[in-house]
Amino acid sequence: MEIRPVRWEGDVLVLIDQTQLPHRFVEVRTTDWREVVEAIRHMVVRGAPAIGAAAACGLVLAAEAIETSDMPAFYEQWLKAADAFASTRPTAVNLFWAIERMKRVAQHCNNPEEARRCLREESETILREDVEANRAIGRHGQTLVPDGARILTHCNAGALATVGYGTALGVIRAAVEAGKRVSVYADETRPRLQGMQLTAWELVQEGIPVTVITDNMAGMLMRQGEIDMVVVGADRIAANGDVANKVGTYSVAVLAKHHGIPFYVAAPVSTVDLSVADGSGIPIEERSPEEVTHIAGVRIAPEGVKVINPAFDVTPAELVSAIITEEGIARPPYTDSLAQMVAKRSGEVR
Amino acid sequence: MEIRPVRWEGDVLVLIDQTQLPHRFVEVRTTDWREVVEAIRHMVVRGAPAIGAAAACGLVLAAEAIETSDMPAFYEQWLKAADAFASTRPTAVNLFWAIERMKRVAQHCNNPEEARRCLREESETILREDVEANRAIGRHGQTLVPDGARILTHCNAGALATVGYGTALGVIRAAVEAGKRVSVYADETRPRLQGMQLTAWELVQEGIPVTVITDNMAGMLMRQGEIDMVVVGADRIAANGDVANKVGTYSVAVLAKHHGIPFYVAAPVSTVDLSVADGSGIPIEERSPEEVTHIAGVRIAPEGVKVINPAFDVTPAELVSAIITEEGIARPPYTDSLAQMVAKRSGEVR
Repeated sequence: MEIRPVRWEGDVLVLIDQTQLPHRFVEVRTTDWREVVEAIRHMVVRGAPAIGAAAACGLVLAAEAIETSDMPAFYEQWLKAADAFASTRPTAVNLFWAIERMKRVAQHCNNPEEARRCLREESETILREDVEANRAIGRHGQTLVPDGARILTHCNAGALATVGYGTALGVIRAAVEAGKRVSVYADETRPRLQGMQLTAWELVQEGIPVTVITDNMAGMLMRQGEIDMVVVGADRIAANGDVANKVGTYSVAVLAKHHGIPFYVAAPVSTVDLSVADGSGIPIEERSPEEVTHIAGVRIAPEGVKVINPAFDVTPAELVSAIITEEGIARPPYTDSLAQMVAKRSGEVR
Repeated sequence: MEIRPVRWEGDVLVLIDQTQLPHRFVEVRTTDWREVVEAIRHMVVRGAPAIGAAAACGLVLAAEAIETSDMPAFYEQWLKAADAFASTRPTAVNLFWAIERMKRVAQHCNNPEEARRCLREESETILREDVEANRAIGRHGQTLVPDGARILTHCNAGALATVGYGTALGVIRAAVEAGKRVSVYADETRPRLQGMQLTAWELVQEGIPVTVITDNMAGMLMRQGEIDMVVVGADRIAANGDVANKVGTYSVAVLAKHHGIPFYVAAPVSTVDLSVADGSGIPIEERSPEEVTHIAGVRIAPEGVKVINPAFDVTPAELVSAIITEEGIARPPYTDSLAQMVAKRSGEVR
């Protein structure tokens, strides 16, 4: 089974409801863009590239829902939908990248009919390019994976976090396809348990050996020599190589550094935000305290206790061994290497 | 309310059922030593000093259940109960320390009646001494706490983990009693959530400000300058100062080192095991995978996925800034300072 969390089926957008995994495999079928906004906000779709792709498709549905034939009126109304998508989640830059890309297309259209057609085509291009990018990330990244590697990953940067194949898990899939024997340790990734509920589920589907650990076991395993490399995804990468990713990524990076274990980030170039000089400029989403105080609808915390729930943290570039993109492997100093990747990608696309 | 997780009420042993906190405050009242064995095994009572104290009291109940007046027959039967307690949990050395202490008492008795009386007196001494030791740990330890300190702790080394007052939380309580303003970050401590469910509950009872975080947020907070010191308990301390404590402690110690934050261990001298040269000699309990795959009775993991569940990890002495005992603060090199603490303690007791 190929995992496709964001796809078109004719005029219907089909999303895998990731809040129901691993217990139930449920697909949400919708033609209502507002439902897509809510799906992103409530993490039915999550993962930076998947969020971008879902927003692009949602903007197609929004365009199709606007009935006027007057272009300025159409565009004004459509921009409100774009703003609604932009307000869902602040950290993953792929969301804003996808919205901007769709805006550029709409701006070049002469009438709503053309806009609806071109936006749909652009969404299909985004979906296709994302999978191609992930396969390229895999091809580049798998060269860094030794045969027999025991690989730690955090959160889910798999097929479920993208349009297909995955970024960090794309590297692992590509290593397996290259005939390497690998095994994976998946941090469960509190509070939302994406490692346990999504990464482990994905890898079990593929038959790739996976062991789930609580987030606080990673250091112990590293000390015991059980981890050969770390690979994670990213929600936004600053110009200097600082990486925003799921909360806990920073702790894993410090532990990897302490134990001399390479720490790799795998992400498409669309995750690089050259407009942000370093990690201090990346907005970090604070999510609902209930994600920490409850699990599976059951309250686990005492009443009245204070919790915090930052969804992401920033790993400084000096802890990152390399950033694997579809254009190749960026090495320090990242200010140069990431700018090159972005330039190469821009040269290819139009 | 003074929290007393292990206490005598006449002939009845009263335990706080820590598996029901923070939702329900339930006391288990028993005169059946087998129930105490199960209470330790299933973590109704947990925390190294509390386990030792509960075993001592359980051995009193065992003595009272043996009806013979023949001393050799009595002792042989009573040793079987001692073996049952010794088989419950392998890592916390306080368990074995308490059993040995009770054995020495029984061995010096001439008849079962005398043994029953002396064992009960010894259990009462152990209970009293534990609280006294924790108050002394607090007195010594609070000198290390700056006014205004934001203190990170992992798991529960509080009143609930001891006979009362706590070790790591004893240091925090003593700092508050000394008029210092402190606030606490409590790692939730997966898989069993002792930080969220016990430490946070204890501190809320006391009115000490506490914020619960998922284990993977500690690094991020340290990088943001939000943590001034770390204090944790211990389940066993080797002669060289290596510390076995709840899994995840090692990761916290590495993170503290990376950020130049002092990392303190608070434990009674009974936690020091001079017979073990270093951490590699400490047995690490592997507990049921269900503790990881389920929370509050609800399955959270996909079917068929492999998990591991080591209950403890070992923090090497070089990451430990100081070990706070009731005899004073041990500093590196621990081989000397811990031996001195043990000698001082032996000098006092008989």
